[in-house]
Amino acid sequence: MAPYSCMTKPQLEAEYQKELEAYAHWKAQGLNLNMARGKPAKKQLDLVSDILTTLQTPEDCFDGSIDARNYGELAGLPCARAYWADILNCKPGQVFVGGAASLNMMFDIVSRAYTHGLLHSDRPWCKEETVKFLCPAPGYDRHFQIGEFYGAELIYIPMTETGPDMDMVEEYVKDPQVKMIWVVPKFSNPTGITFSDETIARFANLKPAAPDFSIIWDNAYSLHEFEGDYTPFPDILTLCEKAGNPDMVFEFASTSKITFAGGGISCMAASEANIEYFTGIFGVQMISYDKVNQLRHVKYLQNKAHTLEIMKLHASVMAPKFRVVADYLNREIRPLGFASWTDPKGGYFVSLDAMPGTAKRVWTLCKEAGVTLTNAGASFPYRFDPQDRNLRIAPSLPPVEELEKAMGVLCVCLKLAALEKLLGKDAI
Amino acid sequence: MAPYSCMTKPQLEAEYQKELEAYAHWKAQGLNLNMARGKPAKKQLDLVSDILTTLQTPEDCFDGSIDARNYGELAGLPCARAYWADILNCKPGQVFVGGAASLNMMFDIVSRAYTHGLLHSDRPWCKEETVKFLCPAPGYDRHFQIGEFYGAELIYIPMTETGPDMDMVEEYVKDPQVKMIWVVPKFSNPTGITFSDETIARFANLKPAAPDFSIIWDNAYSLHEFEGDYTPFPDILTLCEKAGNPDMVFEFASTSKITFAGGGISCMAASEANIEYFTGIFGVQMISYDKVNQLRHVKYLQNKAHTLEIMKLHASVMAPKFRVVADYLNREIRPLGFASWTDPKGGYFVSLDAMPGTAKRVWTLCKEAGVTLTNAGASFPYRFDPQDRNLRIAPSLPPVEELEKAMGVLCVCLKLAALEKLLGKDAI
Repeated sequence: MAPYSCMTKPQLEAEYQKELEAYAHWKAQGLNLNMARGKPAKKQLDLVSDILTTLQTPEDCFDGSIDARNYGELAGLPCARAYWADILNCKPGQVFVGGAASLNMMFDIVSRAYTHGLLHSDRPWCKEETVKFLCPAPGYDRHFQIGEFYGAELIYIPMTETGPDMDMVEEYVKDPQVKMIWVVPKFSNPTGITFSDETIARFANLKPAAPDFSIIWDNAYSLHEFEGDYTPFPDILTLCEKAGNPDMVFEFASTSKITFAGGGISCMAASEANIEYFTGIFGVQMISYDKVNQLRHVKYLQNKAHTLEIMKLHASVMAPKFRVVADYLNREIRPLGFASWTDPKGGYFVSLDAMPGTAKRVWTLCKEAGVTLTNAGASFPYRFDPQDRNLRIAPSLPPVEELEKAMGVLCVCLKLAALEKLLGKDAI
Repeated sequence: MAPYSCMTKPQLEAEYQKELEAYAHWKAQGLNLNMARGKPAKKQLDLVSDILTTLQTPEDCFDGSIDARNYGELAGLPCARAYWADILNCKPGQVFVGGAASLNMMFDIVSRAYTHGLLHSDRPWCKEETVKFLCPAPGYDRHFQIGEFYGAELIYIPMTETGPDMDMVEEYVKDPQVKMIWVVPKFSNPTGITFSDETIARFANLKPAAPDFSIIWDNAYSLHEFEGDYTPFPDILTLCEKAGNPDMVFEFASTSKITFAGGGISCMAASEANIEYFTGIFGVQMISYDKVNQLRHVKYLQNKAHTLEIMKLHASVMAPKFRVVADYLNREIRPLGFASWTDPKGGYFVSLDAMPGTAKRVWTLCKEAGVTLTNAGASFPYRFDPQDRNLRIAPSLPPVEELEKAMGVLCVCLKLAALEKLLGKDAI
């Protein structure tokens, strides 16, 4: 196989006919496969289902003298706050433990910023003429969606292999209308890259013009290596504090990909001043989050060391799937030289750059052959990929045998769309 | 004992000295008792703790083909939607099942009304010059707090024995700035009264000027009889629909006082159009609520009939406590003729009207003797009881022997504050 760029038109035409046939072959199979969202596989959920029987009797339901079954402890059970502090290398007083979804807490922070303001806001953001959010992309679509929902102007910051383009970030935060940046610092969604120490230090040392500029540090995959050992990660709270920016960061984590995606616990870590401010505000909306599930989780996961043992179980299911993705792309696409992709060692995604101008077409071709991918462009602010080339691959849900088929389809579609482009064909 | 109103000044002075002594006696005991919040007793929580072991294996975690442990089903597991439809006499499509706190969903509705508007809003409420909420009082302090948090003008509507003063409500809703009314229609918090059929019909047939006027129908105690059998309650959704107001009501319920106050499930019931509108909006803030806990609840509670059997267990603990409250007040206070109180057959509270102008003083006297009550005035908008007479008694948490002491203290404090008033004494 030669790169497409070295082929003559007749050779490309022959390739095109071959891929058309392969595509027809896949289509005839009537597949219904999904690589759209980062959902854990049933096998992973089964491996951690012992958590169901962690609490069995009334006596099991106490954290010291606190009855987890009753109202109270808005900021979370003390043992749950201590658990997350252990995971994130921060202090229990810097932790607020929530319900099943960390996304909901991020949303609540933004919602309250708009209607009431953050700790250092001069006024609620709804009273600002313009509010701008920095959106390193490819990034997490649901992050951008929250900003869009509140009418923030989303500014695209390119991602590099060491994190967001920090020169741009440092420049943009000089604008007092820039109020937030949204990142997944370890095993980033969807590129899978981990921010370098330099990037992290530059984040902590930002000198934003807005007194209430905030970093949404979504540490969703902090323990989620599927290849190799756990790599410790700097505590952003301490770094921000040392840099004189103690209240600038809100860190989030959850057990959605440790225990159950449909029934985990989440946390927000921030300065004690921020935790105090938001505990007051959250006290208007609720009496307490589900503390029984908090206790169930702490008894099952115990601490960071034990949680990392559980993550090995997940890795045993995840690693073979990411190998399938890499194997297919390396074998089928790499020699053709028109696409590139990331090779993460943790997290839930592979970010694939198809031939520029073909991502939407690849998505449609896959869909028509029964393979659902995350919408092309979804990883960009306003769902607009300026080069129409990025696709997010989420290989966790399907079993390996289904994933092999899905990757077979994807590779054919990548080629077909590239060949259409090169040959000036509009559609099949 | 004669009513205070029939006593001479020397007689009152003698009573005062007697109660001062009784108060000193209580104070010397160094009590630390709490009748402030409607928290279930440990005994109640123990009675329903079998729910902990309802789900034990991966196979237990399915609702049909849906794995409750994974992402998805934002509006709730189908079986959980069906369960709540059975409880509330509505359709599963009219139910959105949430997390541990129905209060949080009420808050979210108001929050989204302010920033984005409801289904029939002309504009977000933050763009309105004035937004007014009708607050029947005594009512639930946390309801009023949400309105206050968003800067709504809270309008006091007196409660009667059949519900809010509906003449006033019908008059007020002619004002297009009036956007909401907050009620607990059955075993109201704190009066314990249940709305009459006529009141309910008048609610459903309101003709509000605001197209987005909404009733927050917090049906928190729909199954919560502690004396006598369950009394069916009209379905407000159907009544509103029949009256041509299908989208005017949001009904809420939860299992906070059925299973665990610290780990239940909640629901919102509304027209299918409202459910569709809010499922879209909630989809920005989260992927799904805790479905494992939803399934755990449905398997444990099963249906309305079985849930009512479980409510009998709660009643066995609750009824004796409410009898203690009634017995003390009837014996110690009734003959003196200066106070009145409700005599509920369900719910979590007794509403007590002390001698006008003494509620705050009674609260302080109780506090100083080691008995904590809900803050005087808390049940009124802006925490302002125009007559300074109302106190909310929450007898559920303390065991009977502690409750007896707390009621002993309360009765002495009621008398002491009344006598101070009658004798023109400022303080002890």
